[in-house]
Amino acid sequence: MRVCVVGAGLIGGSLGLALRGHQSIESVVGLGRRAEPLKRGVDIGALDDWHLDPSKALAEIDVVVLGVPLGAIAEVLRWIAPHLPDNAIVTDVGSAKGCVVNDVTAVFGQMLSTFVPAHPIAGTEHSGIDAAVADLFVNRRVILTPTAATSEKATAIVHQLWALAGASVVEMSVDNHDRMLAMTSHLPHMLAFGLVDLLAGATDHEEMLRYAAGGFRDFTRIASSDPVMWRDICLGNQAALLEALAAYRADLEVLSEAVAQADGQALEAIFTRAKNTRDAYRHWFET
Amino acid sequence: MRVCVVGAGLIGGSLGLALRGHQSIESVVGLGRRAEPLKRGVDIGALDDWHLDPSKALAEIDVVVLGVPLGAIAEVLRWIAPHLPDNAIVTDVGSAKGCVVNDVTAVFGQMLSTFVPAHPIAGTEHSGIDAAVADLFVNRRVILTPTAATSEKATAIVHQLWALAGASVVEMSVDNHDRMLAMTSHLPHMLAFGLVDLLAGATDHEEMLRYAAGGFRDFTRIASSDPVMWRDICLGNQAALLEALAAYRADLEVLSEAVAQADGQALEAIFTRAKNTRDAYRHWFET
Repeated sequence: MRVCVVGAGLIGGSLGLALRGHQSIESVVGLGRRAEPLKRGVDIGALDDWHLDPSKALAEIDVVVLGVPLGAIAEVLRWIAPHLPDNAIVTDVGSAKGCVVNDVTAVFGQMLSTFVPAHPIAGTEHSGIDAAVADLFVNRRVILTPTAATSEKATAIVHQLWALAGASVVEMSVDNHDRMLAMTSHLPHMLAFGLVDLLAGATDHEEMLRYAAGGFRDFTRIASSDPVMWRDICLGNQAALLEALAAYRADLEVLSEAVAQADGQALEAIFTRAKNTRDAYRHWFET
Repeated sequence: MRVCVVGAGLIGGSLGLALRGHQSIESVVGLGRRAEPLKRGVDIGALDDWHLDPSKALAEIDVVVLGVPLGAIAEVLRWIAPHLPDNAIVTDVGSAKGCVVNDVTAVFGQMLSTFVPAHPIAGTEHSGIDAAVADLFVNRRVILTPTAATSEKATAIVHQLWALAGASVVEMSVDNHDRMLAMTSHLPHMLAFGLVDLLAGATDHEEMLRYAAGGFRDFTRIASSDPVMWRDICLGNQAALLEALAAYRADLEVLSEAVAQADGQALEAIFTRAKNTRDAYRHWFET
């Protein structure tokens, strides 16, 4: 397989590092708007070569991985469309999938049989090519959300690509993905960003943060994530995120009311159910 | 110093482990309602001896550390009051301080000059004597909140005790402590418990948690905390927590509205301020 990674960031760079050297991978070429991260990608061993010109990068390519933020996907698709080889498979790494399907449909006039929407559930609060590591996807889940239009062959090849990178690959519908991720990822990011933003607005936030401890550190780690990426996720997964936010705000109202009423029994019940649920399933996410 | 730790849990056990062996510590004796954790405290080296009878445990004691949940403090004070040596200093480890001052005042008819409200900002989502470790307080902050009634000598001795355990000790007012901790600790716990409780109520929460990742793990770690301890903190710091919850809910309404309006500029501004604030101060809590 000859792979082209568009955008040399944390995900694209880590994928290059993970794929290069495998027998079935002939080359990993980088394509982007800026030379600097692409050069750096070659330096750290994530890319064999790089181009700023899609006609050069995409010639004789089998799989194109769009390693760019959700907000850039439509523009990148328009940029590469004239240069895509006929049977080249295209996939992305975005954290929301409905908006990607919409972008593909808008740019190409229909959902392509060669496009496989994908979401590697990996990453850190860091971003950029210098944060790339070869084992980022090892034992991580990658969710593929093929649509009715997606060919089985295309899905199988993207599946194989991520398996080579060490990931555990699953398939589900676009809607199911977007609803589940809204709850377990997008909503928590909103809550963490919201808390630190609230603190930032307090005149004595310096003093407050001086007495913050390990719980605060872990709870807010995701508030150090890339603002542009998360703006795009909010806009891309708007409907499911709004639903999750509404449900959460209703829950928080109940909890606030229990505190206001000094209803110890209700509080203990909420905390116990939460603790029991987290403890019961944490082997799934505490790896 | 002869120290009595009431309650052999994570904090009491860890303090015993940290203090024993220091030249200025003559002995660390455990007192409690149940023999089992106290015996275990001796086994792991946290206690020299233990008693179920306060008249035996408190004879010739210099400092009594109440290592019990906030909700048990009034009852424990009533239990030990008849047996406290005249000049014995008493201190606690509760995460809220106003309610402790109220408990002391209620039990003794006035705030004692020998009582030093204290809060070691340490701990994990684990609890119990078996989670105790000798270095739990090393480089952690302990906040003392002496009131107008508290003697300087008593404060100095409790300061010395925590410094021996490796902590960095600071003093502030009860109100300032309770307001700051509501924001940086109590509110985040509510938000994490609330999120996992919301998930627990979803019929497909098993599947959702299967696709949760590192961000979810860290964000919700504090939702594995002890429900009874957190019930007591909510009730003990009710006013400051309600204020923090109200401010947060207002912030979350603004954020939800920005998502609903697809206001990318507003979202990016919130996320950027949060990220910048966290990144600027994280050397304080990322130790």
